[in-house]
Amino acid sequence: MELACHIAIVTFEQMWRDLEPLGRDPTSAGYRRAPFAAAERECVDWYVEEARRRGLDIEWDGQGNAVAWWSPSPVADAPASSARAAESAASHPAAAATLSGNKGSASERRPTSGDILIGSHLDSVDNGGAFDGPLGVASSFAAIDILRNQSFRPTRRIGVAMFVEEEGSRFGIACLGSRLATGQLRPQEAAELRDRHGVFLLDAMAEAGIEPHLGPSPLLRDVARFVELHVEQGRDLVHRDRAVAVASVSWAHGRWRFDFTGQANHAGATPMQDRQDPMLTYAMTALAANKQARLADSRATFGRVAVQPNVTNAVPERVQAWLDARSADATSLDALVESIVRQATERADRDGTSLEVTAESVSPTVEFDRPLAQQLSKILDGAPVIATGAGHDAGILQLAGIPSAMLFVRNPTGISHSPEERAEMADCLAGVAALARVLEGLAA
Amino acid sequence: MELACHIAIVTFEQMWRDLEPLGRDPTSAGYRRAPFAAAERECVDWYVEEARRRGLDIEWDGQGNAVAWWSPSPVADAPASSARAAESAASHPAAAATLSGNKGSASERRPTSGDILIGSHLDSVDNGGAFDGPLGVASSFAAIDILRNQSFRPTRRIGVAMFVEEEGSRFGIACLGSRLATGQLRPQEAAELRDRHGVFLLDAMAEAGIEPHLGPSPLLRDVARFVELHVEQGRDLVHRDRAVAVASVSWAHGRWRFDFTGQANHAGATPMQDRQDPMLTYAMTALAANKQARLADSRATFGRVAVQPNVTNAVPERVQAWLDARSADATSLDALVESIVRQATERADRDGTSLEVTAESVSPTVEFDRPLAQQLSKILDGAPVIATGAGHDAGILQLAGIPSAMLFVRNPTGISHSPEERAEMADCLAGVAALARVLEGLAA
Repeated sequence: MELACHIAIVTFEQMWRDLEPLGRDPTSAGYRRAPFAAAERECVDWYVEEARRRGLDIEWDGQGNAVAWWSPSPVADAPASSARAAESAASHPAAAATLSGNKGSASERRPTSGDILIGSHLDSVDNGGAFDGPLGVASSFAAIDILRNQSFRPTRRIGVAMFVEEEGSRFGIACLGSRLATGQLRPQEAAELRDRHGVFLLDAMAEAGIEPHLGPSPLLRDVARFVELHVEQGRDLVHRDRAVAVASVSWAHGRWRFDFTGQANHAGATPMQDRQDPMLTYAMTALAANKQARLADSRATFGRVAVQPNVTNAVPERVQAWLDARSADATSLDALVESIVRQATERADRDGTSLEVTAESVSPTVEFDRPLAQQLSKILDGAPVIATGAGHDAGILQLAGIPSAMLFVRNPTGISHSPEERAEMADCLAGVAALARVLEGLAA
Repeated sequence: MELACHIAIVTFEQMWRDLEPLGRDPTSAGYRRAPFAAAERECVDWYVEEARRRGLDIEWDGQGNAVAWWSPSPVADAPASSARAAESAASHPAAAATLSGNKGSASERRPTSGDILIGSHLDSVDNGGAFDGPLGVASSFAAIDILRNQSFRPTRRIGVAMFVEEEGSRFGIACLGSRLATGQLRPQEAAELRDRHGVFLLDAMAEAGIEPHLGPSPLLRDVARFVELHVEQGRDLVHRDRAVAVASVSWAHGRWRFDFTGQANHAGATPMQDRQDPMLTYAMTALAANKQARLADSRATFGRVAVQPNVTNAVPERVQAWLDARSADATSLDALVESIVRQATERADRDGTSLEVTAESVSPTVEFDRPLAQQLSKILDGAPVIATGAGHDAGILQLAGIPSAMLFVRNPTGISHSPEERAEMADCLAGVAALARVLEGLAA
C-alpha cells in the first residue's frame, strides 16, 4: 500500500483509539454522548484538537455547530513526512489510480466556486454505537491527511463539519443543529425546547460554555457541496458484498407523540370492567403500528414511553408514547400514520380512554442531489447507489438547497443505535480512501 | 347531634384541613407523599403534633413506624369541654345508643389483656388520593376525641399506629413497614432495597433523621387487636347504599417483574422483519394479562414500565414491566400468572426476544379474623362484611397472628390511587363514629 494511504491509516486508527473511551458505558459498551453534556463535550475537545493538529481554522456558529477549514494556500500544506508520501504515491501508478480516478469527468460538473463541506456529528443516542456520526468526522480528517500526503492542492476551501444534536436524543428534534443552521427550525421554537429534566436548550448551551446565537449559520454561507460519510444502518452492502455505497434518497419520516389518557385507579380494587386503562390502548396501538408498517413495506416503531404515575399498583392515568414512522414517500407515510391513528382511536373508544396525536417533526423524502450522486458513484468506480430509512444532516442541507451526498460504509451486523453497531477497520479505511477521492474530484 | 360527636367533628375537619395541602400537586390535585421524602415527613410532623395535642405518648421503632399511645390512667383524660360533652351524651339516650351499642356481647369475646391498635399509613402512591391511608390515622385521633369527650375510660392501651411505605411506591415492596415490624421481611433483604434513583432504604431513613434499626418491632409486642379504617377502593358500599363496612378477606396478590430483552436497533433503517423488538412482546403481554384477568374474574394490571434506551428513533433493547395480579385465592392467582407468562413466552419466541419473570412480592389470601369481623359488624348494627382486592397493613398483621379487622368508608367514585379518590365528609364522620364504637366494644 502506498505511503500516503499508510499515513492516513495510522492517523485514522489513532483518532479512533482516542475517541473510543469517550462516553462509553463500561457495562453495555454502548455510548452515551448526549449533546452539550460531559462525554459529548469531550468529543468536541477531540475535534478541536484534531483540527489544531492539522492547522485547520475552526469557525463556530453560536449554536454548537462548527467547521474546521482547510483553505487553499500558496504555500505547501503538507508536512515533511507527507511530502515524502506524495512522492511515493506519485511514483506508484496503482496508488494514483486509486485516489484520483475519474478526475476529468468530475471536474466537468463541479461548480466553479464555493466551499466543499464534509463531516457529520459527534453525539449519540443513549447507549448507541461508536460509528454513527464520529465515523464521518474522523474519516474527514483522515481524508484530508491523504490529500495532503499526496501534496494535493485544493482550489477551494474544504471544511470538516460537526453538527450538534443530530440524534434529537436530548431535545427531541433530530438534526437540531443543521435545522437551525439552514433556517429550517425557527430560533423561537428552539428556544422553547427542554430536555426531560426541564433544562432549556439555551441553558444547556450556556452550561457548555456557548454564548447562544440561534439561527441560519454563517458556516454554510458559501457551501457548494456537502458530502457526509456514515456507517450504513442496514445490511444492503453486506448483501451486495461491497464496502462503500452512495446514497440515493432518504425516506420520508417523522415523530408523533401519542397521548393516551384514561383514569388512574387502584390496580387491586378496581374490577376490570370498570377501568379506563390507557396502557391497553397504547399496547394495541404499538402492535397495530408494527402490523401496518409490515403491510405497507414501511417502518413504524414505538421506542419511547412515559407513564403517569408509573407505579405497579395503579392503573395509569396517562401513557405517552412516541411513534417513529418512515416510508419511501410522503404519501405512503401519511397513509401509514393515518391507519395507525385510526386503529388507536377505535381502540380508545372501546377502552374509554382518549387519544391526542401531535406531530413533533416530519421530514419529507429527501432525494440527494442526483448529478452529485452519479458523479460520486463514477469517481468510486461504480459504487452502488442505495436508499436509506434514516435521516441525516446531509438530508437537511439538501432540503435547504445545498447539493448534498452521502457515502455509506458497510456494517456487518446492520445494527445501529446500539452497542452492536459495527464497521470493520478495513471498511472504514475504504471509506476514508473513497472520501479522499471524492474530495479530489470536487475540490481540484 | 350530641356534643361529644360535635367536638370530634370539629377536630376531624380541622385535621383534614391541616393535611390537605401536604404534598398536593397544584396541577393534578393529586398527592405525592413518597416515604421518607419531604411531603410525607410533613405528614409525620402533623401526626406528632396531633399526638402531642392529645397528650399521647409516641413510640418509634427505628424503621419509620410509630404508635401514639393512650394509656389507662386513674385521672380523667378528658378536658373540661369534653367533660361537658360526656354529660350531654349521657343525658341523651340516642347518642348513648349510637356510641355504645352491643357493648355486652363485645365484651364476651374480647381478650383479657393486650393493646388495641388502630391507625393506618400516611404515604401515598405518586399522584394518589387524599384518603388512602391518612383517613385511617385522622379518624383514629377523632375516635379517641369522641371517647374522651364521653369520659370513656379504656381498660387497656389504645394506640394510633402509623406504618411507613405502605404503598411500596418508593422501594417496591408494599406494606414495607408492617412487613418489617412483623418479621415478614428480613432486615437483610430490606437493607438491599433501593429506590429508582439508587438510594438505599437505610440512607433514605438516615436522610429523614431516623437512626435505622430494622426488624420485628417492639411496638407490636402486646397488641391484641388491630383495626384499620380505610377508604373503600371500589363501589360496593355505593351499591349497598351504606356508609361503612367491615372487611372479610383481602385477595391473594403479588407483583412480578417482566424483563423483555431484544436487540436495540435503528428505528428508521431496520426492516421490520429484521427486528427483535421487546416492545411488541410487552404490548401483547399487557393485552393478554387484561384478557386473562377478565376470564378468571381476577385482576391484572401493567401500570409501570421502564424502557431502555427509551428513545424515539431506536428499537428498544429492553422493556421492563411490572405485573400487579390479584385473585380471590392463591390457586387462581397462580393459574392467572402462569397463563400470562405462557402467552408472553410464546410471543417472545415469535418476536425473537427473551423473557425473564421475577416474583418481587407475593401475598396469600388474607382472611381477617372472623370472630372479630362478626363482632365489629354486630357493634355496627349489622354493617356489611365485604371482600377487597387491595392489600393493607391490617392484612400483614393478620398474617403475623394478630387478630385484625378493617372498616371501609364509602367512596362515591370507587376510584383510588388517583386524584379522583373521594369520600364525603359525612361518610368519613360515620367512619369516625363507627371506630369509636368499636373501641368502646374492644377496650372497655
